[in-house]
Amino acid sequence: MSNHRNVKSVGRVVFGRGSIRQLGEILSPNRRDGAPIVFLVDHFFDDKPSVLGLLPIVEGDRILFADVSHEPTTAQVDALRDRIRDAFGSVSGIVGVGGGSTMDLAKAVALMLTNPGSSADYQGWDLVREPGVYKVGVPTLAGTGAEVSRTAVLTGPTRKLGLNSDFTPFDQIVLDPDLIADAPPAQRFFTGIDCYIHCIESLTGTDANAFSRTFGETALRLCQEVFLEDARWDGESDERLMMASYAGGMSIALSQVGVTHAMSYGLGFVLGTRHGIGNCMVFKELEEFYPDGVRAFREMLVRHRIELPRRVTRELPVEQVDRMVTVSLGLAPLWRNALGPDWERQMTRERLRALFARV
Amino acid sequence: MSNHRNVKSVGRVVFGRGSIRQLGEILSPNRRDGAPIVFLVDHFFDDKPSVLGLLPIVEGDRILFADVSHEPTTAQVDALRDRIRDAFGSVSGIVGVGGGSTMDLAKAVALMLTNPGSSADYQGWDLVREPGVYKVGVPTLAGTGAEVSRTAVLTGPTRKLGLNSDFTPFDQIVLDPDLIADAPPAQRFFTGIDCYIHCIESLTGTDANAFSRTFGETALRLCQEVFLEDARWDGESDERLMMASYAGGMSIALSQVGVTHAMSYGLGFVLGTRHGIGNCMVFKELEEFYPDGVRAFREMLVRHRIELPRRVTRELPVEQVDRMVTVSLGLAPLWRNALGPDWERQMTRERLRALFARV
Repeated sequence: MSNHRNVKSVGRVVFGRGSIRQLGEILSPNRRDGAPIVFLVDHFFDDKPSVLGLLPIVEGDRILFADVSHEPTTAQVDALRDRIRDAFGSVSGIVGVGGGSTMDLAKAVALMLTNPGSSADYQGWDLVREPGVYKVGVPTLAGTGAEVSRTAVLTGPTRKLGLNSDFTPFDQIVLDPDLIADAPPAQRFFTGIDCYIHCIESLTGTDANAFSRTFGETALRLCQEVFLEDARWDGESDERLMMASYAGGMSIALSQVGVTHAMSYGLGFVLGTRHGIGNCMVFKELEEFYPDGVRAFREMLVRHRIELPRRVTRELPVEQVDRMVTVSLGLAPLWRNALGPDWERQMTRERLRALFARV
Repeated sequence: MSNHRNVKSVGRVVFGRGSIRQLGEILSPNRRDGAPIVFLVDHFFDDKPSVLGLLPIVEGDRILFADVSHEPTTAQVDALRDRIRDAFGSVSGIVGVGGGSTMDLAKAVALMLTNPGSSADYQGWDLVREPGVYKVGVPTLAGTGAEVSRTAVLTGPTRKLGLNSDFTPFDQIVLDPDLIADAPPAQRFFTGIDCYIHCIESLTGTDANAFSRTFGETALRLCQEVFLEDARWDGESDERLMMASYAGGMSIALSQVGVTHAMSYGLGFVLGTRHGIGNCMVFKELEEFYPDGVRAFREMLVRHRIELPRRVTRELPVEQVDRMVTVSLGLAPLWRNALGPDWERQMTRERLRALFARV
């Protein structure tokens, strides 16, 4: 019996330079009498009128800055939800403006405005029961695919795991390549490489099919162009990276990520390492799983003059590494995709501990 | 001021061989108490239990065979709507099973079950006011992109034009490459080439952006593989053509088709020529607009031993050719995409008449 994934899409997509200027017109029919729109904005922009000035704020709307210097947590989502509910009662919608963390925060907050309890209760697969409020994603970094995914990855009290559900995808995304033009180059690299790693993990995984492969190959080609071939970064690089992020996100929507993500989640849970940089630190050491991808990646590091933290696990107490291993091994679908159905025999705690020791 | 298209997506996509077997499970939560599902099936299958046997019919459901030996008409849509309404009052949904014509019929019938009047009233852009009933597309041919488009192309009393609206896309599509495996090779070619032409017209058009280009290049590559490179047609060709159709459809969703489609619509309106073969007859003569694309296409014709009707307009009365020209020139967005904002100066009635004379 076949069991192919039935992928819920983002409702609407607008793509193009300057498309942020259409946001007002897009939000307008979704405003319910008097209920405001809350713009959840990466705090990086709190002194950047060039971006804030583009948001179509009307009377009653509110900008909330989200602190995304750490990976988003379930506590942060619950607190934002409470703050919004206390201030407004109900809202017409949530617009997330930022990178992958802000996208995930916006999705999670929108869901938690209609689902009872704590967001930690919904970490897992298909636990969300009610559609959230209307939610819009406006990425200012490209690579994570969070703009198209059916998850919102959160660090909770006992694990780092997404709210994976058919209610999680945005109702609308606005993909304006001009918004990623001013990202700090290192940040752009770490976020963009997430897409590259998605493609490698999706294309080499056992879950791959013609759909995920087509999207994965498309995104991989775009990543190779922008990170290995382009002589300099320009507006077209922004466009291609933004498109790569979308295609890479679609690829993993129909397949799955692999070893890098499983390990990076463990690292992030214990050390709070940001997803993008954590992926890079892990992926660099995974030549035995992804030989070609890792080789090209090392070239990208040199080309973009990226220095990664090294040996971060060396001084860690044994219990902490053990916890990384436990969190990481909890992500069965990722391991199964990477290593096949007998992954548990292949990826023992010892082997994984040794892999973490290299990071 | 930017004005990028805000594209409404198909709600859910399942892709993979044998995914048709998941249709029962997919329909189940969408069944409203007692109201049946109507399966609108290409009459080609009326003696093909191999396909009919896969449809998850439950008590009360009905299969209606759609005669798609001609391009779908507004009269046919209205008649199907009346027949369904008389028989059932209301339905839980419409499932279209067939090629592009059946996809378009299913979308149009689903819309006309909730919108008053004749489907001819809605030919145009954004005239549909109410969401239709739940609608599912199950393609058995690949290439038209009708499974992802926001249109349902119909021949009406005065023109051939789609019901273009945000309510038109399917709620769900089931992309099972095994379903296209048994298509007659010539039919498969004519339908598949529609995708190839979409890509050429999208990639060379003035509406192209990074999004449409990425999807267009992806689909073009897949079409070139299956129609020019593959030594023989196999299950992987089915997968790639099905994926190409999806990507090609996405490409034109964010851009537009061009000269071939504008002319093929005129041809279809007057002579009833099927869309796929009409496109081929026209495209073959359009080297001045699409030199590389046409050259490769002629190679595909030879390789697949396809003979096209020739000089079909030669014996036509002047008024009929005039009508072709009028219907064709009515499709302003297509001409604008192909030739730019001054298309009207470039494409005079005389020039277009001369182009039709070659077909």
